[in-house]
Amino acid sequence: MKAARLHQYNQSLQIDEVDLPKPIGEEVIVKVGGAGVCHSDIHFMKGDWKDILSVKLPLTIGHETAGYVEEMGESVPCFSKGDAVAVFGGWGCGICQACKSGDEQLCNTPRWPGLSQYNGGYAEYLHVPSYRFLVKADGLDPKNIAPLTDAGLTPYRAVKKVRHLLNPNTYSLLFGVGGLGCYAIQYLKLLSPTNVITVVRSEDKAKLAKEMGSDFVINSKTNDVVSEVKKITFNQGIDVVIDVVSSNETLTTGISCLRKKGTIVLVGLMGTSFNLPVVESVLNEFNVIGSLWGNYNELTEVINLAKMNKLKILVNHYKLSDVGKAIGNLESGKIRGRAVLVP
Amino acid sequence: MKAARLHQYNQSLQIDEVDLPKPIGEEVIVKVGGAGVCHSDIHFMKGDWKDILSVKLPLTIGHETAGYVEEMGESVPCFSKGDAVAVFGGWGCGICQACKSGDEQLCNTPRWPGLSQYNGGYAEYLHVPSYRFLVKADGLDPKNIAPLTDAGLTPYRAVKKVRHLLNPNTYSLLFGVGGLGCYAIQYLKLLSPTNVITVVRSEDKAKLAKEMGSDFVINSKTNDVVSEVKKITFNQGIDVVIDVVSSNETLTTGISCLRKKGTIVLVGLMGTSFNLPVVESVLNEFNVIGSLWGNYNELTEVINLAKMNKLKILVNHYKLSDVGKAIGNLESGKIRGRAVLVP
Amino acid sequence: MKAARLHQYNQSLQIDEVDLPKPIGEEVIVKVGGAGVCHSDIHFMKGDWKDILSVKLPLTIGHETAGYVEEMGESVPCFSKGDAVAVFGGWGCGICQACKSGDEQLCNTPRWPGLSQYNGGYAEYLHVPSYRFLVKADGLDPKNIAPLTDAGLTPYRAVKKVRHLLNPNTYSLLFGVGGLGCYAIQYLKLLSPTNVITVVRSEDKAKLAKEMGSDFVINSKTNDVVSEVKKITFNQGIDVVIDVVSSNETLTTGISCLRKKGTIVLVGLMGTSFNLPVVESVLNEFNVIGSLWGNYNELTEVINLAKMNKLKILVNHYKLSDVGKAIGNLESGKIRGRAVLVP
Amino acid sequence: MKAARLHQYNQSLQIDEVDLPKPIGEEVIVKVGGAGVCHSDIHFMKGDWKDILSVKLPLTIGHETAGYVEEMGESVPCFSKGDAVAVFGGWGCGICQACKSGDEQLCNTPRWPGLSQYNGGYAEYLHVPSYRFLVKADGLDPKNIAPLTDAGLTPYRAVKKVRHLLNPNTYSLLFGVGGLGCYAIQYLKLLSPTNVITVVRSEDKAKLAKEMGSDFVINSKTNDVVSEVKKITFNQGIDVVIDVVSSNETLTTGISCLRKKGTIVLVGLMGTSFNLPVVESVLNEFNVIGSLWGNYNELTEVINLAKMNKLKILVNHYKLSDVGKAIGNLESGKIRGRAVLVP
Repeated sequence: MKAARLHQYNQSLQIDEVDLPKPIGEEVIVKVGGAGVCHSDIHFMKGDWKDILSVKLPLTIGHETAGYVEEMGESVPCFSKGDAVAVFGGWGCGICQACKSGDEQLCNTPRWPGLSQYNGGYAEYLHVPSYRFLVKADGLDPKNIAPLTDAGLTPYRAVKKVRHLLNPNTYSLLFGVGGLGCYAIQYLKLLSPTNVITVVRSEDKAKLAKEMGSDFVINSKTNDVVSEVKKITFNQGIDVVIDVVSSNETLTTGISCLRKKGTIVLVGLMGTSFNLPVVESVLNEFNVIGSLWGNYNELTEVINLAKMNKLKILVNHYKLSDVGKAIGNLESGKIRGRAVLVP
Repeated sequence: MKAARLHQYNQSLQIDEVDLPKPIGEEVIVKVGGAGVCHSDIHFMKGDWKDILSVKLPLTIGHETAGYVEEMGESVPCFSKGDAVAVFGGWGCGICQACKSGDEQLCNTPRWPGLSQYNGGYAEYLHVPSYRFLVKADGLDPKNIAPLTDAGLTPYRAVKKVRHLLNPNTYSLLFGVGGLGCYAIQYLKLLSPTNVITVVRSEDKAKLAKEMGSDFVINSKTNDVVSEVKKITFNQGIDVVIDVVSSNETLTTGISCLRKKGTIVLVGLMGTSFNLPVVESVLNEFNVIGSLWGNYNELTEVINLAKMNKLKILVNHYKLSDVGKAIGNLESGKIRGRAVLVP
Repeated sequence: MKAARLHQYNQSLQIDEVDLPKPIGEEVIVKVGGAGVCHSDIHFMKGDWKDILSVKLPLTIGHETAGYVEEMGESVPCFSKGDAVAVFGGWGCGICQACKSGDEQLCNTPRWPGLSQYNGGYAEYLHVPSYRFLVKADGLDPKNIAPLTDAGLTPYRAVKKVRHLLNPNTYSLLFGVGGLGCYAIQYLKLLSPTNVITVVRSEDKAKLAKEMGSDFVINSKTNDVVSEVKKITFNQGIDVVIDVVSSNETLTTGISCLRKKGTIVLVGLMGTSFNLPVVESVLNEFNVIGSLWGNYNELTEVINLAKMNKLKILVNHYKLSDVGKAIGNLESGKIRGRAVLVP
Repeated sequence: MKAARLHQYNQSLQIDEVDLPKPIGEEVIVKVGGAGVCHSDIHFMKGDWKDILSVKLPLTIGHETAGYVEEMGESVPCFSKGDAVAVFGGWGCGICQACKSGDEQLCNTPRWPGLSQYNGGYAEYLHVPSYRFLVKADGLDPKNIAPLTDAGLTPYRAVKKVRHLLNPNTYSLLFGVGGLGCYAIQYLKLLSPTNVITVVRSEDKAKLAKEMGSDFVINSKTNDVVSEVKKITFNQGIDVVIDVVSSNETLTTGISCLRKKGTIVLVGLMGTSFNLPVVESVLNEFNVIGSLWGNYNELTEVINLAKMNKLKILVNHYKLSDVGKAIGNLESGKIRGRAVLVP
């Protein structure tokens, strides 16, 4: 089968012909219907994380996959050949405290496809180590829902962490309306009556934020975010910041907009470190909360929203052989929603 | 009556003779039994917070008071002259969202005695604007329990915020065993089976931490905290840090000791800002949580612990006229537990 | 002023001419804009609760009031004559544990207007013991929003108690679409993506349920609720039952529809006792939760929803002198939404 | 190997010679060190649950097992022959919502050893379908800790469900000090400063309750529970009832003792149904909560408490061939703590 593999950090992916393993035990081979292209893939390919992750190359990239069950090991119950499935990517050991509490993506020994020694979904087939990582997606088209397994899952977990705070007359602030931000806006509105303010950097993105349901939009290129927030909230301030960017700059702005008891959720990975003001954090009881990807049940809930036809999903399909073009467009900010490779 | 008042920032307190107002409505005059001397008083007297608080001097200092009901306005039910009472100090407006949720100490328009335009407890009598700020303390001696209203209350709220995380085989890390730290150790042990590790800077304090119930002690003058924590926890790391100091240094050390899903509670006010690492906070789902003082019900719970005889309370009594000496000893680290003025 | 008062249990109300007290301290006189007529009023007037409540008659009925500030005591800040206000009715002592946690409606010594020794809102003016029970309602018409203080508040608290359970692909079951049920449907949809199933007893009510946003309706006169629920949920069962009726029959049906980990919220007061199956409750970890009225902050949130124009409010206005007719129509099931007296 | 098997409901167990399967994949053979004898086993053997469970006999009884790893399938990581292990018994499918949230004991298709088609631990060896059901117990003796997997686990989950309610000056009421009750008392004290009141039916059990740490004991044979509770709590009432019996009588008594916002946790399986008073449950916001067994992480926490040497464990050892005697003694109330079979 064909697979887009990284042979060396900072080089282009190569389309290689590789062998497909025979599934045994709980293993499943999924015929890839779509594989989302994510900023994390770019971080990985550039070698930004090579010291943390220590992976032996070559490796097939891709952790955002949906497709069809192709072949199963002898211990796989409850699935049949041809079943449409979304692949939960936060593969864990299954027995540590995090895995046993359902948060496999927080496993101490993660084995994420395309980001560890396990090959990912930029390929014709994906070798999944257990059927326990598959979510049934009958009635949905894998090439459209592939991004739900990360871009659509990560902000869902973030919003659920603060859902109890999102009461009427609260204000939520969101930075960015890219792959993840589009979903963050929708979840905030689907799970609460909060007012959503989205910070963007272009008129095009402002329009997109509105389409996704944002109540207010601030263009940070032309306006000061803190003073705009004051106006919009009648000096009340922000209850919850969802930062899918998490650059040092967005985090600093986010903290400055919080009201008493405000919460900021760190989701993005763009920043290095930011200065948290100590006295203000104590006097106002600020909360700063990290949120990583999502767990299996959360993915099931996201897939259910898609089945209920409640999600707007923006995808741009590319052929597997056009993977370089897809990555280039993502890097230059030309993707509206998510680029998806369709083998 | 006599009151120790601040006439100018950065000057000594003066013992003045002042008038005692007549209580009306819900107001109560409390005869001061004891008034705790707190680091916050020193911050205030030095003018560290003069830009945030904007108070007109002279002002009687003191927000940590217990005593006896002396005189009541015409609308005060359920109290009698002579009742021993602890004074809840987080006076609020009573109608904003924070006040109405019970967290009056988080009121948008705080009116804390000795830290706002309201006179505090370094005096023979304290004028309390409502009986709703009094907690009955029958059977307890006000000059001993005065510190429970802040030094004993603040770490209680902090520990309750993370109580659900303190399971068997978890490790909690505490910085400092001063006025607040002594109580933090005790609450961690009273409310959970967690293992407590206390970081101190002298052998004397190491001994005190052990007396209060700490399972392990690290002297940061002679040992590296991070590597000692690794040894003690068998490389597992810390589940919860309670930082009653919150200097930039302790916070940075605290974050470095956290395990996955670890939480750090900011309680102290020593620091300015500290660098929160973004990628680590996301990948490990760290939580950074501010905690301010405590609310009325939490004070009631602390007083109940004292009534149940479950708290070790360390106090050093000083005459009101020796207030300067008490403050000096606190500044030079000579107080074991808490200094209390007894008028 | 005129007031509709109960002189003896089981007799009609009399329109009496009574004196209006002068407000002192924190007290406020509210000119009544509207007073909702509630099933609880009928219970009270019939003497159903005379052994529990022990009230001395005559008494002005009415605990669901909105209006305008008319006159204030000398210690009332932050209100002005003419301010539109919703009156929070769960008046408490202000110092017990429940009051201090914000749940004044759960006070140990309740003093609810029209249901205790305090006169209620079936009158031209209401004497409110403290401005702390008033919620600003600028821009809203008191005669329309009066029902929000109970009919609109009670299901709001109930829904908030289970909000964290209302995920995509869950099913909620609601009994009744009367004064409270109309709001319950709306809150379930505003705060979550749950599927709402409403049980009604007439085609007229079925239509009303649909108008309020119910996804499914079961007419229990013509269909078996349990088997209809099985069909609608694909045998999955119900995650949350909100029972604003709580008759022995609805509760028994509700329990029978629950899936594993299901929750039933008791809101109504129609029943006496119902048989909770022990083994099923343990094996399935069922939760049975009582919910009483709502607290001040919850009322503020409801009023905010009205200000955001997100609530459909159904009211039928009656003159104060027509109070008997309003009560009669409520008893005979002729009210669509809520009857409101307009003095 | 030898196994004590049930061939027909309501008959004695037979010690049979049966084959031991060869473990494949994730499977593990555990050499039984101890197998606890539980009231549920008696229910099962009597056929009380034959309509719910539909199991084909003969079956080896026993769901409370600890022992040593004997043999492993080819896909078992992180265990070695001879490892002491506690066997988590709530075996589930691993992919349903409950399993994926960590609550495998609430799986929709449970496969509990000794209570389903899977053979249990009354035998020389236990065939465990996955290493994921084993908790390492190094340093502990399996024949002593076997009861921790159910008798010690079930009340732990129950107490954790209400831990946040167990503040200073609260009162907890416990019915029974048998196999589960002994642990319930200890957990209440280890996880909180609540006052524990235990209801017993003999002076012997009263003494046992005191030994386990109960602050107060009521003998219901000689005293009226409700009025004794009033005396002990100064009319305050009970915050939390943990009912490890859950007979109709204990539940009715428990509800009668609750204070406002009180919670009753149903743990036992003795009752059929009990009458929950509707109006009282609403007006007081009572909570009735079912609690089933415990999950894997909770078992790990219990084992950790044992490793920390914080648990008093009462066991009576019997030879496997004396299983009939052990069951008889349990039925006649002669066991202090738990009977454990040691093959």
